[in-house]
Amino acid sequence: MAELHLLSPGGFTAAGIHAGVKSTRKPDVGLLVADAACSAAAVFTTNRVVAAPVIVGRDHVAAGRLRAIVVNSGNANACTGAQGRKDALTMCRQTAAAVGCEVGEVLPSSTGIIGHLLPMTKITAGIAAAAAKLGNSHEHALAFADAIMTTDTRRKSAAGAFTIARSKAIIAGVCKGSGMIGPRLAATPPHATMLAYITTDVAIAPSLLRRLLADATDASFNAVTVDDHCSTNDTVCLMASGHGPVIRAKKDIATFASALGEICRSLAWQIAADGEGATKVVQIDVRNAQAEADARAIARGIANSPLVKCAMHGNDPNWGRIVSAAGYSATSFDPDRSVLRLQGTPVFRHGRPVPFNAAALSKRLASDRVLVDLDCGNGSGCATVYTCDLSREYIRINADYHT
Amino acid sequence: MAELHLLSPGGFTAAGIHAGVKSTRKPDVGLLVADAACSAAAVFTTNRVVAAPVIVGRDHVAAGRLRAIVVNSGNANACTGAQGRKDALTMCRQTAAAVGCEVGEVLPSSTGIIGHLLPMTKITAGIAAAAAKLGNSHEHALAFADAIMTTDTRRKSAAGAFTIARSKAIIAGVCKGSGMIGPRLAATPPHATMLAYITTDVAIAPSLLRRLLADATDASFNAVTVDDHCSTNDTVCLMASGHGPVIRAKKDIATFASALGEICRSLAWQIAADGEGATKVVQIDVRNAQAEADARAIARGIANSPLVKCAMHGNDPNWGRIVSAAGYSATSFDPDRSVLRLQGTPVFRHGRPVPFNAAALSKRLASDRVLVDLDCGNGSGCATVYTCDLSREYIRINADYHT
Repeated sequence: MAELHLLSPGGFTAAGIHAGVKSTRKPDVGLLVADAACSAAAVFTTNRVVAAPVIVGRDHVAAGRLRAIVVNSGNANACTGAQGRKDALTMCRQTAAAVGCEVGEVLPSSTGIIGHLLPMTKITAGIAAAAAKLGNSHEHALAFADAIMTTDTRRKSAAGAFTIARSKAIIAGVCKGSGMIGPRLAATPPHATMLAYITTDVAIAPSLLRRLLADATDASFNAVTVDDHCSTNDTVCLMASGHGPVIRAKKDIATFASALGEICRSLAWQIAADGEGATKVVQIDVRNAQAEADARAIARGIANSPLVKCAMHGNDPNWGRIVSAAGYSATSFDPDRSVLRLQGTPVFRHGRPVPFNAAALSKRLASDRVLVDLDCGNGSGCATVYTCDLSREYIRINADYHT
Repeated sequence: MAELHLLSPGGFTAAGIHAGVKSTRKPDVGLLVADAACSAAAVFTTNRVVAAPVIVGRDHVAAGRLRAIVVNSGNANACTGAQGRKDALTMCRQTAAAVGCEVGEVLPSSTGIIGHLLPMTKITAGIAAAAAKLGNSHEHALAFADAIMTTDTRRKSAAGAFTIARSKAIIAGVCKGSGMIGPRLAATPPHATMLAYITTDVAIAPSLLRRLLADATDASFNAVTVDDHCSTNDTVCLMASGHGPVIRAKKDIATFASALGEICRSLAWQIAADGEGATKVVQIDVRNAQAEADARAIARGIANSPLVKCAMHGNDPNWGRIVSAAGYSATSFDPDRSVLRLQGTPVFRHGRPVPFNAAALSKRLASDRVLVDLDCGNGSGCATVYTCDLSREYIRINADYHT
């Protein structure tokens, strides 16, 4: 069987081209187009400073119908005032003209440097060039995935098939994100932390799609932090073409939600793995906290501590940094009831160190996947957060880079 | 006039010696002793994971009287259970025996690695050796300041004189702190973020001293963040010998509070300047926010963003990172009413970029003091936070270091 990809669900085409927004020769304008108007849902950043395309996109997706997504990388179109909003609308208008739909059926996205007006001559030519290249092959999916990348070192995609009432359905997604990754867990308005686009062929009502996307986002994109810096442009958008089976029955909703959750978690993991300067993913499982909110706060506190992230980079089982981070992250945390395990090895239990072979554990921390497991022992709240280590390479990327 | 130092206020002696807690030959046990019981106040970490000496110290200082402070560096005596508390009490008992006071009049402090029992044979010998060396010269003050350091690259001290009803009074302090610096701004219980010891010769009631210390801490130690990692051992302790003028009248209280505030701010600045890997202090002034709490949240959000800290390290006027950090730090933040200045140069105003000479501004960011000034334009809340840049050296210190 051929490998599944973003355009495997029936009813979608895509393209990615180099328009010259980036100073490199890499692709920087992408289109993802549905053959007909789709049921659609999206979640956006909760930052109070929102980029122009987010303002426009929130408005356009509100009706639950989309026909196309137009993205540029290399420039965020954020902090660009009225001209920025005009430019985001122009991107939609050109896309609508090229694919033959309403302006309000196009969702725009931008990612890159903040505070610069879009080079609209290049963008305009880029959208036309991309529209002329639309197709539904794997190569087209890859070109779109490449066009949305910024400091990413690799493409991120996930796809899966599932069965609804004996009919096969497909869900697939691509995303970008490496730095400025720090989701905020506020429940409303919808929220997210990077760019991700998900396609599926199921037929589903927009209101249901919106709810399922918000739930899936909370346990995936909102559980990733690279630098805890919530961006101005974060967008996750899901389009359902309706070519496949109908999702309405409770059981089918559960099946679809599970498939969607898996795609989102896979994409989120890939963002952590490609975090700026990352050499490993650190998964932080906090269990049995007083409440779920406590578990989340503790997991995020550990994940965002530069001291913890540096220790992970150095394969150092310096568990004191982890326990102290838990201690300032939730007032309910009680060290005397807690047990901390690194890669399965208990290192701290009920207020005291557990003797362990430091050299052996350090060797096992030298892995591309590290599991930090903290049992708080005073409730049933659980949370998982994905992060990465903090390396010199992060400093190189973010200090040597110049605006 | 001779330079003022920790032992300039009448009634104090100190010592610092190498006891072998640290693997280097540097001093690691210090004593600060008052000739007679002092009016005293202290503030401690709000971390839920508190080191044994903090548990013991909170108890001992509660009555507002202290005679001595005993400190070791190289080992935090944190996460060490009942034995740790016993060891902290033993440190107090030995100090009390050596200087001739009650056990409850001694405040213990420890700083260093978490999760290891104190080497009590070395500590015991160290306290005896330090007690035999007590003196009130500048050299004694320096030896004590050296004995409390860990990853600090330099000693931190401040001193000043002021006049109360025509009598001269002195206030002086030393502190340590370089990494694991991230105060929490909760109002109660009292709180702080590193080790600092302050002496003064005024006569003042413990309850008043406590209130003034809490206020001074909020605007100084609690306004510093290096890595936002609130430690298990943070302690600020102030002893007033009573050799000098009495602080009781409203006017005199204001004079003393001002002198105390100045010492605390100087020490706090020195911590930011000696932050792990730091090459500069970044002062973040947030003005005219909706409320003081919003101003604090915005200032801390900016100060703790690794992207902002890396930009500062690279002398990069990448103001989008600053504005976006403000945007996720307080829901009241309105970019359309805000003005951001870097080193006095406006770079963002009312939702849009302000053109500026990037090369010239970058040159002025290459300073050991950078001022980020954000006028939020929608209230009267103000806050100042001190931080430092994020460099490869931070990674070296914290990733290459092994427990």
